[in-house]
Amino acid sequence: MTDLDTLSVNTIRGLCMDAVQQAESGHPGTPMGIAPVAYTLWQRFLRFDPQDPIWPNRDRFVLSEGHASVLLWSLLHLSGVHAVDPDYEVLGRPAVTMEDLKSFRQLGSRCPGHPEYRWTSGVETTTGPLGQGVATSVGMAMAGRWLAGRYNRDDATLFDFDVYALAGDGCMMEGVSSEAASLAGHQRLSNLCWIYDSNRITIEGHTELTFTEDVAARFLAYGWNVTTVADANDLDAVTRAFHTFRAEDERPTLIVVHSHIGYGSPVEDSPKAHGSPLGPDGVRTAKRFFGLPEDEQFWVPDSVRERFAQGIGTRGAELRTAWQKRFDAYRTAHPVLADELERIQRRELPDDWDRALPEFPADPKGLATRDSSGQVLNALAQSVPWLLGGSADLSPSTKTRLTFDGAGDCEPDEPTGRNLHLGIREHTSAAVANGMALTKLRPYWSGFLIFSDYAKAAIRLSALMEIPVVHIFTHDSIGVGEDGPTHQPVEQLAGLRAMPGLLVFRPADAGEVVETWRVVAGLRHEPAALVLSRQALPTLDRTRLAPASGVARGAYVLADAPSGEPQVILLATGSEVALALSAREELVAEGVGVRVVSMPCWELFDRQPQQYRDEVLPPSVTARVGIEQASTFGWDRYVGDHGALVGMHTFGASAPLKQLLTKFGFTPQRVAQVARELVTAAREEATT
Amino acid sequence: MTDLDTLSVNTIRGLCMDAVQQAESGHPGTPMGIAPVAYTLWQRFLRFDPQDPIWPNRDRFVLSEGHASVLLWSLLHLSGVHAVDPDYEVLGRPAVTMEDLKSFRQLGSRCPGHPEYRWTSGVETTTGPLGQGVATSVGMAMAGRWLAGRYNRDDATLFDFDVYALAGDGCMMEGVSSEAASLAGHQRLSNLCWIYDSNRITIEGHTELTFTEDVAARFLAYGWNVTTVADANDLDAVTRAFHTFRAEDERPTLIVVHSHIGYGSPVEDSPKAHGSPLGPDGVRTAKRFFGLPEDEQFWVPDSVRERFAQGIGTRGAELRTAWQKRFDAYRTAHPVLADELERIQRRELPDDWDRALPEFPADPKGLATRDSSGQVLNALAQSVPWLLGGSADLSPSTKTRLTFDGAGDCEPDEPTGRNLHLGIREHTSAAVANGMALTKLRPYWSGFLIFSDYAKAAIRLSALMEIPVVHIFTHDSIGVGEDGPTHQPVEQLAGLRAMPGLLVFRPADAGEVVETWRVVAGLRHEPAALVLSRQALPTLDRTRLAPASGVARGAYVLADAPSGEPQVILLATGSEVALALSAREELVAEGVGVRVVSMPCWELFDRQPQQYRDEVLPPSVTARVGIEQASTFGWDRYVGDHGALVGMHTFGASAPLKQLLTKFGFTPQRVAQVARELVTAAREEATT
Repeated sequence: MTDLDTLSVNTIRGLCMDAVQQAESGHPGTPMGIAPVAYTLWQRFLRFDPQDPIWPNRDRFVLSEGHASVLLWSLLHLSGVHAVDPDYEVLGRPAVTMEDLKSFRQLGSRCPGHPEYRWTSGVETTTGPLGQGVATSVGMAMAGRWLAGRYNRDDATLFDFDVYALAGDGCMMEGVSSEAASLAGHQRLSNLCWIYDSNRITIEGHTELTFTEDVAARFLAYGWNVTTVADANDLDAVTRAFHTFRAEDERPTLIVVHSHIGYGSPVEDSPKAHGSPLGPDGVRTAKRFFGLPEDEQFWVPDSVRERFAQGIGTRGAELRTAWQKRFDAYRTAHPVLADELERIQRRELPDDWDRALPEFPADPKGLATRDSSGQVLNALAQSVPWLLGGSADLSPSTKTRLTFDGAGDCEPDEPTGRNLHLGIREHTSAAVANGMALTKLRPYWSGFLIFSDYAKAAIRLSALMEIPVVHIFTHDSIGVGEDGPTHQPVEQLAGLRAMPGLLVFRPADAGEVVETWRVVAGLRHEPAALVLSRQALPTLDRTRLAPASGVARGAYVLADAPSGEPQVILLATGSEVALALSAREELVAEGVGVRVVSMPCWELFDRQPQQYRDEVLPPSVTARVGIEQASTFGWDRYVGDHGALVGMHTFGASAPLKQLLTKFGFTPQRVAQVARELVTAAREEATT
Repeated sequence: MTDLDTLSVNTIRGLCMDAVQQAESGHPGTPMGIAPVAYTLWQRFLRFDPQDPIWPNRDRFVLSEGHASVLLWSLLHLSGVHAVDPDYEVLGRPAVTMEDLKSFRQLGSRCPGHPEYRWTSGVETTTGPLGQGVATSVGMAMAGRWLAGRYNRDDATLFDFDVYALAGDGCMMEGVSSEAASLAGHQRLSNLCWIYDSNRITIEGHTELTFTEDVAARFLAYGWNVTTVADANDLDAVTRAFHTFRAEDERPTLIVVHSHIGYGSPVEDSPKAHGSPLGPDGVRTAKRFFGLPEDEQFWVPDSVRERFAQGIGTRGAELRTAWQKRFDAYRTAHPVLADELERIQRRELPDDWDRALPEFPADPKGLATRDSSGQVLNALAQSVPWLLGGSADLSPSTKTRLTFDGAGDCEPDEPTGRNLHLGIREHTSAAVANGMALTKLRPYWSGFLIFSDYAKAAIRLSALMEIPVVHIFTHDSIGVGEDGPTHQPVEQLAGLRAMPGLLVFRPADAGEVVETWRVVAGLRHEPAALVLSRQALPTLDRTRLAPASGVARGAYVLADAPSGEPQVILLATGSEVALALSAREELVAEGVGVRVVSMPCWELFDRQPQQYRDEVLPPSVTARVGIEQASTFGWDRYVGDHGALVGMHTFGASAPLKQLLTKFGFTPQRVAQVARELVTAAREEATT
């Protein structure tokens, strides 16, 4: 530990205090406590080139205690990290300027309240909701190991990056971090290092109030390597701990660092240091303690900038340049693999990615959309080698297992396997998929729709980060049958549809499943949720109905009124489309002009031009019935003031599906009756 | 272990196999493996009177591996547990008849696919979603200790019940169980016993695939007492393990039981034993192994019924009778406390529960609804001694701390404290509240609205079980400000509103907060979510506006058009009501007839008679603007085809609130402009 190290650490602390003070908002205490550790990691260990922050083999740094964002902003600023545009072009300007730091938490600043992926380059994942960062880091580490396994060659190590996550007491308390740590231990992810910033202070007070477990012992039980740093300010001890991690090649490492929230300030070791500015006097007192100029704000001595340039800057540039040379040689030796890697970085698919998508002939008996999706997924995954995923212990039910030769299981002794066994850990499953997508693989994970509730917070992050994760949910309604209301989704569809930026697909048959995957495969900046049936659904006869390619527009006229002039429109998704068609048959036989609209993806439909939307749902046809085995919440938008809904208004029940369909009114007779009443009402209105 | 014990255990296994086979649906494997443990617990230990399954001091048995429901149905049947009506009257008929068992998983059977609270008496909590049962059991154990602390006297031990939860590998993998175990260890809940049915088989295969942590070591790290049973069939070892639990008075106990899924059947130790019937041949083979008559179905020898009657039946009746005598004496000695206990059991409030509710005078500056709610909660809690709760480490922010003299913290050395420190564990917080409500206390818990995502699955269970938990969510919108999009709810309101049976309140000011709590306090069979602001909201002048008691009807006319003939209706909730009033002022000055409707609780409004709803929202007034700082999803129902919405269409941003209001269009000017356009359009429509 040199004087310059100390000065650098304290300079970071000064920036953090000043930025929070300037914003009059933020979290100064955590950065002040843990700055020495973050500094040591960045300065001495992190293999990261500020000039190319998306270099594929960079070490990843995840700030899981995202409220300490100002620490990351300071590091990005001092390291001179370059900006990157949304399409992954590195730009010639800094990601975080001094002006950004000075406008911390203001509209448009690159230094928002929490780290935002895609908004500020150098942010590897959006954090803030506690536990998410560490859980996501597991996906990154698995992706790193997978990339190494697939692409490294004896003559070329392209991937050997490490993943570091800095976590606080809150992260350790959240259940998702327990799930993720258990999985990481099982997977023996020796490229993963969590730093537990144990300052023992939370918003309500000391952790003695509620969190007295032995965290180190817990992680040993998960199969982790655990080491401890007694004092965060002891840079030599911190350095030794990182060397311990580097030397470990069998297990993930937890470094427990004892730190002091608000270190050096008048509110050290107090919850008051957590979420409020220190105040001008507090800042002055702390600066005095640190030997910083009291009257200067945002003070950065040249020697500190130089230190960063010499440390992470020089090391990163050298490593990246050497890597680039290796990759150039690799491109010659392994052109196909190199091409894959370049596509992966641009989030592009192989040219012939859709060559083998199956076709499904019309079949009145049909198959469950979970089954057709499984077939499409297997075909796709054979064409897209970096499409991989798994299930929260439900792959035999969700049908997401890749069964072709060589697909394999992703286990410690077979890290290039394509099938992940994520365990009964939905929340971590989604977070791991996020981590893999952030590493630019194309991941999916699957579970029952009802358990999307468990994973909600991680699903949301995929939408907020605009990353193409595929969330596959089967057993999508009372179609679950005997398992009953605890397993029958009702409100889950509404909750997912209400989420900005998430495309929710509920395909009606195998044909729509193929088209759904065609859209989903092509997504580069959006996650999707596939909502699939447990029960068999007829494969529709597309020679008599509109082609399933209508999925790409979100909703389409599947079957029109024989006259082309509908009196009533039946709108449905998924398993209820066949029901709508049956009701239509009954009504058409009576001479009623019925149109059936399949609406597999509301979000895509809402993006269509008004003209198309009016073609599908002509404003003049106000007799509309929305049919879905889910909460009716949100449907009024499409059925309008004169419409009616056949949906769920309560939780489900335990019984064979056939009985449930009658109990809850999902029969052609009931739908036809509701439609008839609307037609009659519309006719009466027109004649009065 | 006697022959009769063996016969009893095998009789249970036979019932389980037969019920699943008859239903052609269900989970036979887990019951077959763990039946000896469940039998031993019920027969020898559980202090439970089948004739009064709601006796307040009964031991609780939670089947956290809820897919094994048929095991519970068999136990309830063999024990002769009585039915209870929804208003807590014990009925003179059995809860589970042989006919119910034979119609397992059929519509209307008291033996549904998973245990359903309130549907089958003897079910202490609804389970099925893994991890929920164990997490809920922690709330029950805390409630038990709290009741003991408050009501026991030297001369009368009214409460000393234990809580047992039977959990599988899945429960152990779910993050919520880790949170709950950490909390239980901290709380030193020596009245809590989890039985870990470790059969090491999950749906995807052996736990070696994904779950290789040392669970016993993990629980030791949480501060639990851990003991192991090497063979589930060794009833003596099982008995010793329960004695170990009984002898422990400092820590919760985990009994790790090694069992064999599908024990005795051809698919023993295979995932095939998990979720499918064994088939007629498999059942026969297993019955042969167990020495059961192969050709008999649902076979119960009299000796086994007698065994249950002599065991749990006699013990339970004696204990309950003795308790009743103690309670009769207690009523004489402590009439006030006895009265409390009787009200608690009936879910009634003290007569004068609302005596001290605060009033809030009109105040243009006002206060945040989190603040007014905190004041109301404190007043209520002083009148209702069994109203208690806590926060997921956010009480200084959510303002839910009870601050009056004697409120105290609920900690191991102060178990009657009213303030729970639940830690940064939202999911467990909600589950603990569920467990307390199931023990008939009146619990609340609080967190930021965004983190309701973490707790979603447990919130859902409170709705499904129809128990009066109060979920308090503050920081309800972009009003969060600088913390940015990770902390700003957008779709959460829609997700909660779409949930059947949950009352979601978003009060507009302190006046509505009081009325919200007045409604919520009186709920006996419904949970509620309170959605509160971080930022100050004006306290409305009720002398010039309608009284806040309109909250009870869900929505009400807050301010009408001066003429009484509105041209346009502004509908808003929470913080946007004041915005609507400002826009109204602007428009009324221009001569536009504007009505403002406050809609704090959509669910209550939807329950009002059509006449009232038409009074509030006259069908003739189609110019309507819905205003809410949340996803517009679901609003169309109220604003109709000709309405407009001022809401959120994207995630939020990090900035001071004022900047966000402009960025996202929540200004009186914009609202007024949208309203003007609707009025113009309506006028044009009328004149054409």
